[in-house]
Amino acid sequence: MKPLAVTTDQPELAPRSWTTRRDEKTRRLAAVAGWLEDGVLPTSRMTEALELLIRPGDRVALEGDNQKQADFLSRSLAKADPAKLNNVHLLISSISRPEHLTLFERGIAHRVDFAFAGTQSLRVAQLLEDGQLEIGAIHTYVELYARMFVDLIPQVALLCAEKADRHGNLYTGPNTEDTPTIAEAAAFSQGLVIVQVNEIVDELPRVDIPGSWVDVVVQADRPFAVEPLFTRDPRHIGDLQVLTAMMVIKGIYAPYGITALNHGIGFDTAAIELLLPTYGESLGLKGKICRNWTLNPHPTLIPAIESGWVESVHCFGSEVGMEAYIAARPDVFFTGSDGSLRSNRVLCQLAGQYAVDLFIGSTLQIDADANSSTVTRGRLAGFGGAPNMGHDPRGRRHASEAWLKLLKNTGPVSRGQKLVVQLAETWKKGGEPTFVDELDAIAVGEKSGMPVAPVMIYGDDVSHVVTEEGIAHLHRAEGIDERRAALAAVAGVTPIGLRAQAQKTEELRRRGIVQFPEDLGIRRGDAKRSLLAARSIDDLVTWSGGLYTPPARFRSW
Amino acid sequence: MKPLAVTTDQPELAPRSWTTRRDEKTRRLAAVAGWLEDGVLPTSRMTEALELLIRPGDRVALEGDNQKQADFLSRSLAKADPAKLNNVHLLISSISRPEHLTLFERGIAHRVDFAFAGTQSLRVAQLLEDGQLEIGAIHTYVELYARMFVDLIPQVALLCAEKADRHGNLYTGPNTEDTPTIAEAAAFSQGLVIVQVNEIVDELPRVDIPGSWVDVVVQADRPFAVEPLFTRDPRHIGDLQVLTAMMVIKGIYAPYGITALNHGIGFDTAAIELLLPTYGESLGLKGKICRNWTLNPHPTLIPAIESGWVESVHCFGSEVGMEAYIAARPDVFFTGSDGSLRSNRVLCQLAGQYAVDLFIGSTLQIDADANSSTVTRGRLAGFGGAPNMGHDPRGRRHASEAWLKLLKNTGPVSRGQKLVVQLAETWKKGGEPTFVDELDAIAVGEKSGMPVAPVMIYGDDVSHVVTEEGIAHLHRAEGIDERRAALAAVAGVTPIGLRAQAQKTEELRRRGIVQFPEDLGIRRGDAKRSLLAARSIDDLVTWSGGLYTPPARFRSW
Repeated sequence: MKPLAVTTDQPELAPRSWTTRRDEKTRRLAAVAGWLEDGVLPTSRMTEALELLIRPGDRVALEGDNQKQADFLSRSLAKADPAKLNNVHLLISSISRPEHLTLFERGIAHRVDFAFAGTQSLRVAQLLEDGQLEIGAIHTYVELYARMFVDLIPQVALLCAEKADRHGNLYTGPNTEDTPTIAEAAAFSQGLVIVQVNEIVDELPRVDIPGSWVDVVVQADRPFAVEPLFTRDPRHIGDLQVLTAMMVIKGIYAPYGITALNHGIGFDTAAIELLLPTYGESLGLKGKICRNWTLNPHPTLIPAIESGWVESVHCFGSEVGMEAYIAARPDVFFTGSDGSLRSNRVLCQLAGQYAVDLFIGSTLQIDADANSSTVTRGRLAGFGGAPNMGHDPRGRRHASEAWLKLLKNTGPVSRGQKLVVQLAETWKKGGEPTFVDELDAIAVGEKSGMPVAPVMIYGDDVSHVVTEEGIAHLHRAEGIDERRAALAAVAGVTPIGLRAQAQKTEELRRRGIVQFPEDLGIRRGDAKRSLLAARSIDDLVTWSGGLYTPPARFRSW
Repeated sequence: MKPLAVTTDQPELAPRSWTTRRDEKTRRLAAVAGWLEDGVLPTSRMTEALELLIRPGDRVALEGDNQKQADFLSRSLAKADPAKLNNVHLLISSISRPEHLTLFERGIAHRVDFAFAGTQSLRVAQLLEDGQLEIGAIHTYVELYARMFVDLIPQVALLCAEKADRHGNLYTGPNTEDTPTIAEAAAFSQGLVIVQVNEIVDELPRVDIPGSWVDVVVQADRPFAVEPLFTRDPRHIGDLQVLTAMMVIKGIYAPYGITALNHGIGFDTAAIELLLPTYGESLGLKGKICRNWTLNPHPTLIPAIESGWVESVHCFGSEVGMEAYIAARPDVFFTGSDGSLRSNRVLCQLAGQYAVDLFIGSTLQIDADANSSTVTRGRLAGFGGAPNMGHDPRGRRHASEAWLKLLKNTGPVSRGQKLVVQLAETWKKGGEPTFVDELDAIAVGEKSGMPVAPVMIYGDDVSHVVTEEGIAHLHRAEGIDERRAALAAVAGVTPIGLRAQAQKTEELRRRGIVQFPEDLGIRRGDAKRSLLAARSIDDLVTWSGGLYTPPARFRSW
C-alpha cells in the first residue's frame, strides 16, 4: 500500500445526504398529516396510518414490556394489509399476546429480536420450525434495549402510556417500565414515535416523557393490557418453602449482612418476604438486613414495609392493585409529585447490577455445576431480566461488607463477589427432579439451532444453592470437585444428590460449606405456614389498611 | 420462638408518617418561596437559598459529570456558612474543580462517594490523610448512579442544563450526560431538584427533562464549565502508535469481525480511528468492521464518518467544538428534533456493556497477569467508566459472530466472550516500564486503606494485549503459564518481557496465540504518520468541511 500524500488524504467524496432518516420521517408524517389534529390520530385510522408510517423491512420496536402492552397498536398492526406492509423486523421484549405472532403468520413481520416469550413460547418454536419467523437473537430485556442504541436502531417505536396532553407530553402512570428508554432510542435517531394512550387530557398529573419526543398520539379503544405478574397468593406457600426461607434469613442474610438486594419472582422468595416481620423480627434482624430493595412492588412485601423493615424500593415496573398503597408510602417507593410510582426497568436493572449485594431467585432445573435454567422442553421462553440480576458484575469497583465476605484471597489483586443465590426444592411438583445431569435447555438450544444453550444463570456465577435440605455455600468450596460435592449434599434424592458421600458431606458441614437446618439451629418442625406474616391475599389487604386492592382473580371473599 | 396466631400477626403498629421526605421538601421549599418567581431563584440569592434548602448531613448529588460541571452551584455552595451548613455527604461522579474540595476544607461537606478525581486526586489523598474528608467508596460512574436508587438516595440534586423555560422544563444541549439520571433519582424520591441554567427562555429547542421533575431553577453567573476531554491532536500520534493501530485493524478487527465497538480515550485509539479511511480502506474493510459505535464524539472519528465507515454513534457525553458537525450528521449521531446531540451516559454504558463486542483502551501499567491500572503513586484517581466497558459482561445472553469467536468449548454449557483489548507501549515516555511486577495501584490502595486494590481492568477479563511488539491473544492461551508467556512475548525489554523464552514465543506465534507485525504481513517501516487520514487538528477541520470548530487551545493557526 502506498501512503497517501497530505493533499489527497481527503478523497473527493461523492456528495451524499446525511439526513436520510430525518427526511424519510418527514415524508411519512406528511402522508398522515391530514388526519392529525395536534398530533392526535383518530382511533379509527390506526391501521391505515400504520401502513403509511411503517415501511417493509423496518425495524419496529413494539412495546410489549414485561408488564404493560401496547395492545391497541399491536392489534391494529396485525390488521394491516401484508401486500402493503410486510417483512417487518420486530423488536419486542416480551412476546406475550396472540396477535404478536399473528404478525408473523400473516407475513407482516418476519424477523424478531426478543427477550421473553412466556405463554407464547410453544407457538414461537412452531413458527420458527415452519420458517414463518426468524429469530435474530434471544436477549435479556436490557440487552435488547442496549442494541436499540447500537445495531438495532428502530425506524418506528409503538409505545404505550396512560395519558397524553395536547402537546404530546406523556404520563405513563406507575408502569413507566421501558417507555422512556425505547422512546429515547427512536426519538433521537429520527425514528417515529407513535403512542397509544388510555386518555387525552388537558393537564397531566406529571410528565414522564416530553412531547418533543413524540410524533403521533392515539387514544386506544380500551385501556392497555397489563397482567399482575408479581402477585403471589400466600395460600400457596407450603411448609417446605417456609423452611427454606428461614434458612436463607438465618444462614445467608444475617451472617453476610445483606442490606441491599433483589428478589426474583416466586413463592420461595415471597416466603422470605413474609417471614421478615415474624421470624426475622424474632432474630433481632430488623434494621440490620433487607433495607434497600430493587424489586417490583410485590404485595407480599407489604407486611415487611408496614413493620418498618424497608427503607426503599426501586421498581422495574409496577403491580396491578398496588397503586393506592404505593401512593400512600412515598417514603419507601419512588413516586412523582402526583403521588404515583415512577418505575424504570433500565435504571432498576442498573441498580440491581451495580448497587445491590444479593440476587436470589427460584429455578426449575440445576445441573451438577449449578448451571440453571427455566427453559423446559419445546419452549423457547427466554429469561427476561434474571441473567442480568443473577451474575457477578465484573465491572463493579466499590466494596461493601457483604461483597467483601466473598473475597477470595488471590494475593494483592483480588475482588469481592455478588451473592447469587438459587432456590429450589429438590423435586418439582410434577414428580421430576430439579437436579439433573443435563439441563433441558441444552436439547432445546440444539433443536432450535441456537449458538449456545439457553442457560439462565451460569454455575460459576452462583454463590449459594438453597433447598429444603440445606444451604451449599459454593463460593467457599475449593476446586470443582468440592463444589460439586457441596451441591450434591443439598440435592436430596435426585440423580445429583445421590452422588453425595456421607463422609464428605460431614466434612463440608464441619467447615461451614454445607449447612443443614440443624447446623443453623433451625428445627424442621418449626417451619410452619403459621409463621407467615400473611397467609392469604386477604391478610395482605388487611396489612395494607385496605390500600391494596387485588385483582379479581386473587379475591376469594 | 412461638409462632404468632393469625389475629396477632399484624401487631398494633405505632402510627407513623410515610411522607417525611415529602413533608421535609415542602418545608424547605416554603423557606425560599418568597424569593421564587415561576420557580426561578434570583442569581444573587443562591448561597443563601442553599443554606435553607440543604440540611446538615444531607446526601447531596452535585453534578460534576465527566464533562459538564454545575459550577455555579458548587461555587455558591462553597461560600455557605459552615455554622449553618455542614457535614454534607457529597455524591459526585467527578471531583474536578478546586471548589469541590474547598467544601471539605471548610467543613461544609465531610463524606464523599465519587467515581473519578483526575486533576484533584493528589488533594483528595491529602484531605483524606488530614481527616477532613471521608470516602464512602470509589465507584465507576454508573455504579454511583445505581446507588442513588438504592442506598445513596439524594435529599438534594444540584444539576446543570443549558436552558430552562418558565415551566422548569430543561434543555441540556448536547451534554445531556447524567442530568436525566440524577434528576430521576432525586425527583422521584421526594428530593429537591435545583438546576443552574445558562439561559431562561420562552421556548426550548426541545425538552430533555420535564419541568414537573424540577423544583428550583437559577440562571448561572456564567455558562457552565465543560472541558474538551476527548480531543486528541493528531500531531501527537507517533509512528509506533500507527504500527499498533495497524496491528489492531488487521489482527483483531478484521479476523474477529468487529462491527460494534467502544474506543477508550487516548492517542492509540485515535490512531486507529484515523487509519480506517486509509489503511482500513486499502484492506477492503469498509462496511465490514467498525460500523456501530458507543463513543463520545471524538474529532478523530470525523474522517471515518466522512468516508462512509460509520453507521451510528451513540454518545456518553459530547465534545466541545463538535456541535455543528454533529448537528449536520443526524444519520450518524443521536440528535433531537432541534438538531443537537442527545447524549446519555447510563444508556451509552448499557449499550457499551450489552450491545458491543469490543472495548479497546490504553493503560499505564500492566502486570504479568494482564491486570492493569491507570492509578499511579500518590493519586486516588478512580476510573470513571473504563471498568464498565472493560469487562466481560456475564449477564449477556445473545450471541454475535465476534462473541462466539471467543467461545471456549466447555461442553454443552458454554458461552462466548467480549473482546477486551488493552493497548500500551512497552515503555512510557518518562522512561518507566509499562509492564511491571506489581501495579502501583496496590501500594496506593494499601496506603489509603482501600479494601481492595484499585485495579482498572482485571486480567481475567482481558482477551488481548497489544504493544508495538505484537498482539497477545490471551484468550487462546491454555492455562496461566501459557497466558503469562503470551503476555511476556509482547512486553519488550521490561521486567515482564525479559521473562519471555524465545522457543516458547516461537511456538505461540506458530499457534497464532502471539502475532508479531511480520506474522500479520505488516512491515514496521510502513507504519508512518503519513498514513493517518488527518495529521493535525486543522486537517480534521478540513475533513469536517469547516463544521468542526476546535477550542482555542487546539488551534495552531
